[in-house]
Amino acid sequence: MSDLIIWTYDWAPEGPRGFVRDIRLRWACEEAGLDYEVRTIPFDGRETNHLDRQPFGQAPFLNDGELEIFESGAGLLHLARKSERLMPRDPAGEAETLQWTIAALNSIEMVTVPWWFLNICGDPDNGLTGWMTQRLDHLERIFSEREWLAAGRFTIADLMMADALRVEKVRAFGDRPASEAYVARMTERPAFKKARAEQIRLFEAADASRSN
Amino acid sequence: MSDLIIWTYDWAPEGPRGFVRDIRLRWACEEAGLDYEVRTIPFDGRETNHLDRQPFGQAPFLNDGELEIFESGAGLLHLARKSERLMPRDPAGEAETLQWTIAALNSIEMVTVPWWFLNICGDPDNGLTGWMTQRLDHLERIFSEREWLAAGRFTIADLMMADALRVEKVRAFGDRPASEAYVARMTERPAFKKARAEQIRLFEAADASRSN
Repeated sequence: MSDLIIWTYDWAPEGPRGFVRDIRLRWACEEAGLDYEVRTIPFDGRETNHLDRQPFGQAPFLNDGELEIFESGAGLLHLARKSERLMPRDPAGEAETLQWTIAALNSIEMVTVPWWFLNICGDPDNGLTGWMTQRLDHLERIFSEREWLAAGRFTIADLMMADALRVEKVRAFGDRPASEAYVARMTERPAFKKARAEQIRLFEAADASRSN
Repeated sequence: MSDLIIWTYDWAPEGPRGFVRDIRLRWACEEAGLDYEVRTIPFDGRETNHLDRQPFGQAPFLNDGELEIFESGAGLLHLARKSERLMPRDPAGEAETLQWTIAALNSIEMVTVPWWFLNICGDPDNGLTGWMTQRLDHLERIFSEREWLAAGRFTIADLMMADALRVEKVRAFGDRPASEAYVARMTERPAFKKARAEQIRLFEAADASRSN
């Protein structure tokens, strides 16, 4: 049995397949060569059935031996402490990785996720569009100057930022060639492709049992 | 000279005074008894004038000796490594602190900040209201069961969550007595009150020179 267990739903509708946030933890484990297992909680009743393990009724959460950690961003920062492949060990490299990981969570997703939510609710030209444009334009400038966000190499900051930016409606929002090239590079990584394929395979395998 | 330097604007309009995010870093330093200095960058031209130090044109950022760290959430996690008063040193306590700090940044602020933004733009009953209700209701359940978010004691998780929840329009949204009591307890802490008073004093002192 592995010490690392990634918990996700036992099924998900087609839309979010390949995007459920357990992919962040799978991807990190694949990049680092960390041994892990995936286990599931029921998708049905997720709003209330596992609130003792995830207080907002979401997935994923992570076990590391006795520890249980929710929030995919927290899981990433926890995994990064286990492998230098995910985050350098020198203070400057660690600080850069930390700041860009938090930037993805709190400066980018704080705009892109609610913008996306309003968009799929039928309001594509919503009140967050101007703010979103500003934030993505800032990132475009960054990506036109460098290949990686932190420490001149792949880190969880790239993993987290690429996962935020690869959302289809976000990726299609405006024309930002350097950002697009960044997302394309990150999603070509074998560790990402394996993580994505395995998430999709899990949910597809569950289709049969649900249609019975 | 202190190793820790908190950089913020040299002035801010009345509305955000007491809420500019340098308060998070000031508050943490006050709780931990860490020696720090506050220095300023010009508020005017902030959109473009310090992009080399903060890629989204925001404040604060933090110096720790040679290190420079932007994103207030990253600054908090960095400071937490310097003092046990901000985060326990045992793995379970550290994991709990980390997950709840990230929850404040990516599960709460990801809804409350854009909801607030749409609200002040003239759309108080916006498309994020239902989502915001759900998230705050989950927190109300948590706060009705416990005094602290992590490790049974004050940590940066409480600092971060209280700073997200004390925003006036968020605090006034619905009737959640346990959450309100939590925010009141946190904002009664002497370290918070000192941090807030000093931020407000800095901006007020700058009024005179701007009106010249």
